[in-house]
Amino acid sequence: MAKVSPARGMRDHLPAALRRRRYVFSLVEEVFQLFGYEPLETPALERIEVLQGKYGAETEKLGFKILKRGAGAETGQCDMGLRYDLTVPLARFIASHPELAMPFRRYQIAPVWRAERPQRGRYREFYQCDVDSIGSASLSADAECVVVADLALKALGFDDYDVVINHRQLLRAIADAAGVADREHELLIAIDKLDKIGREGVSAELESRGFPAEAVSSLWDVLGSAESDETAEDAMARLEQILPEPGPKAIAELRQLLVHVDALGGDLESVRFDPVLARGADYYTGPVFEIQLRGGGMGSLGGGGRYDGLIGLLGGRDLPAVGVSLGIERILVLMEEREMFPELPGVAEVYVAAIADEAINHALHVAGLFRSAGVPTVASDSALRVKKVFKHAERVGAKFVVMIGTDEVASAEVSVKRLSDGKQWRLPFTDAVQVVLED
Amino acid sequence: MAKVSPARGMRDHLPAALRRRRYVFSLVEEVFQLFGYEPLETPALERIEVLQGKYGAETEKLGFKILKRGAGAETGQCDMGLRYDLTVPLARFIASHPELAMPFRRYQIAPVWRAERPQRGRYREFYQCDVDSIGSASLSADAECVVVADLALKALGFDDYDVVINHRQLLRAIADAAGVADREHELLIAIDKLDKIGREGVSAELESRGFPAEAVSSLWDVLGSAESDETAEDAMARLEQILPEPGPKAIAELRQLLVHVDALGGDLESVRFDPVLARGADYYTGPVFEIQLRGGGMGSLGGGGRYDGLIGLLGGRDLPAVGVSLGIERILVLMEEREMFPELPGVAEVYVAAIADEAINHALHVAGLFRSAGVPTVASDSALRVKKVFKHAERVGAKFVVMIGTDEVASAEVSVKRLSDGKQWRLPFTDAVQVVLED
Repeated sequence: MAKVSPARGMRDHLPAALRRRRYVFSLVEEVFQLFGYEPLETPALERIEVLQGKYGAETEKLGFKILKRGAGAETGQCDMGLRYDLTVPLARFIASHPELAMPFRRYQIAPVWRAERPQRGRYREFYQCDVDSIGSASLSADAECVVVADLALKALGFDDYDVVINHRQLLRAIADAAGVADREHELLIAIDKLDKIGREGVSAELESRGFPAEAVSSLWDVLGSAESDETAEDAMARLEQILPEPGPKAIAELRQLLVHVDALGGDLESVRFDPVLARGADYYTGPVFEIQLRGGGMGSLGGGGRYDGLIGLLGGRDLPAVGVSLGIERILVLMEEREMFPELPGVAEVYVAAIADEAINHALHVAGLFRSAGVPTVASDSALRVKKVFKHAERVGAKFVVMIGTDEVASAEVSVKRLSDGKQWRLPFTDAVQVVLED
Repeated sequence: MAKVSPARGMRDHLPAALRRRRYVFSLVEEVFQLFGYEPLETPALERIEVLQGKYGAETEKLGFKILKRGAGAETGQCDMGLRYDLTVPLARFIASHPELAMPFRRYQIAPVWRAERPQRGRYREFYQCDVDSIGSASLSADAECVVVADLALKALGFDDYDVVINHRQLLRAIADAAGVADREHELLIAIDKLDKIGREGVSAELESRGFPAEAVSSLWDVLGSAESDETAEDAMARLEQILPEPGPKAIAELRQLLVHVDALGGDLESVRFDPVLARGADYYTGPVFEIQLRGGGMGSLGGGGRYDGLIGLLGGRDLPAVGVSLGIERILVLMEEREMFPELPGVAEVYVAAIADEAINHALHVAGLFRSAGVPTVASDSALRVKKVFKHAERVGAKFVVMIGTDEVASAEVSVKRLSDGKQWRLPFTDAVQVVLED
């Protein structure tokens, strides 16, 4: 027999799991819509030039490329690729629609594809969930991204996370203060690992890269008490004093951001300032933020930041931009593990079964009556034995079983059983619908 | 500047159009769920062996192939492809899940990809919308497919179509009666063009393919009055008399199908029997049906049929199957042309604007109050002049404009204007929310 599994790293979403995914997507989407973000869908395939040169060589190796029709087969020539995130396609979209009024605020929840080595919980097709504001330089747009992510997570039932904030220009000032302004990028990459390898690990890495010892110790002087119990406000005030520009300007922006977050009704209690938060991507230019599960090393539920240069870089107008991305696949895994899903409606509320051959069309008729009344209903496709009726009813999650046999056909009635308490009725067709509607 | 358009044959779905698409998808989905069909999502990519050898060489040329990672670039070797329909992936899914309880009844509304020559209204990425019942040999499953498609189209507002039915075994019997039983497939392909090229065209094509003249005239004898005003029941009765088996058996099944359609509450008035309906695909084995717009040559809104051999062919158990597919992209185009969309909600109900710099955080705060009350709200990201406020409010489709300037900040009030009638209020923050909620 032919191999029938999905392709490597791909998966099928079966009905029960898919209903839970959709529950999450729809709650998140509701919050996005409450803020007036608009839906957008871009195609799965983009021209290869759009995708290339945007993410760095390592990431681009992970792109799935489409063989060009015609000449392609022999030459391996590729003219398109599957998107591997939603940001580059958004930038391409903005560039191709110069008529769009600004700010353009959109959300997109959609699959992306990356040829990563498949492993537990990591797939080659997975969903991303992004909100972006294009064309607004105001920090209120950043604050909205923070608050919309916060509210979406709260709507899903999460409460054990911090919103960690920082500013890319602060990292620049820190590099400057440590005397390594020209090596900001390397510094950032090393510092980004602080969570995983600790101060000693970062120091070792910096020294092996040839950073002067005094630069490294100066770095820890600057960051000094950031790991102590210093409050966010104290840490900001201290850095404002000791850092050169653009440090103080970045601190002022973060303060402004927090005022906006507060005004929007966001929860300042859960906001934490961390001057070493880097957020991997190269393209950030301003405030960055990450939603981190409390408890240390528990990972992130999402994050984002301001990326004022990216849209221009991708061929469009030079527009300011800020966005946030929820780690929706990780959120789904956590919600499964933590059993955070409510009981979701089953396939049908009512299962209508014929229990005699001559009752089949009556069963179809009664199923039609339930559906006309708006009640999701499954009908048996043939006459079943009573035992099998209840097995099928359970499988579709029905609350009521309606049975029609020879007797019921004769009297134009149905037998109704409510599964929650076993209560039974024998009723004319239309009364049966009423009993279910009134339940 | 780099080329910024979508890839060839691809398109972006902008917010306003996307809202209409989603309106259609959600109405259709609601009907599917009313019948207890379950959602399923299969991956966009399938192993190339799964896709190949299923559709015929012509169609398979249209498949987008994925270059194999690693060795691929030089050799043009491909190991995966983008799905070009939802049926083959469904069959692969069924084969890979032998534990599934039958009947398995699922729907899927999802994009597929085909490298067809792009033209007006035809894209290389487009949605299909399928309902299938796997594992049921009962004609009630076929009837449900007919009725679910009918109800979905009615829910969208269509009423000028016929549900045309036929049976593949009837075409076999017709070929037999015409003395060309061994050339059934060729006959079917020619007859499928009857709508477009008429009887003379079909006759000419058959003769050029070397069909004997007496076979062609016998064919029209059999079909004879089918184009006259003969009722469906009369046509069936006549064919039942003159056709060899499996003709009479097919007629009996169609009668049974119609009884089930009627029992399910389907509209028999719109059902039409057409003994030449072939429905292109090779894989149909039993009843076939197509939803045709009235008025002749207006095309189809969808169709389907029974395909009992396909699942086994694709590597799974040999399971009976029947399905229906709505031509969702064509439906969307028609609904645009016919202006069948209701007025859909805009981006936001309320637009809150600061009209003085010191009012920005007040505006964010008031926007937060509206959102907490469940009212979709957009806030200005900076202080705006009044004229611009109304331009923005109109763009987001707001029903209320809330403005906050220096005076309002001082009195902790807002100015509210209802755009439908110009009525204005000046109210404390929370009262403003009440006014909108009560509207």
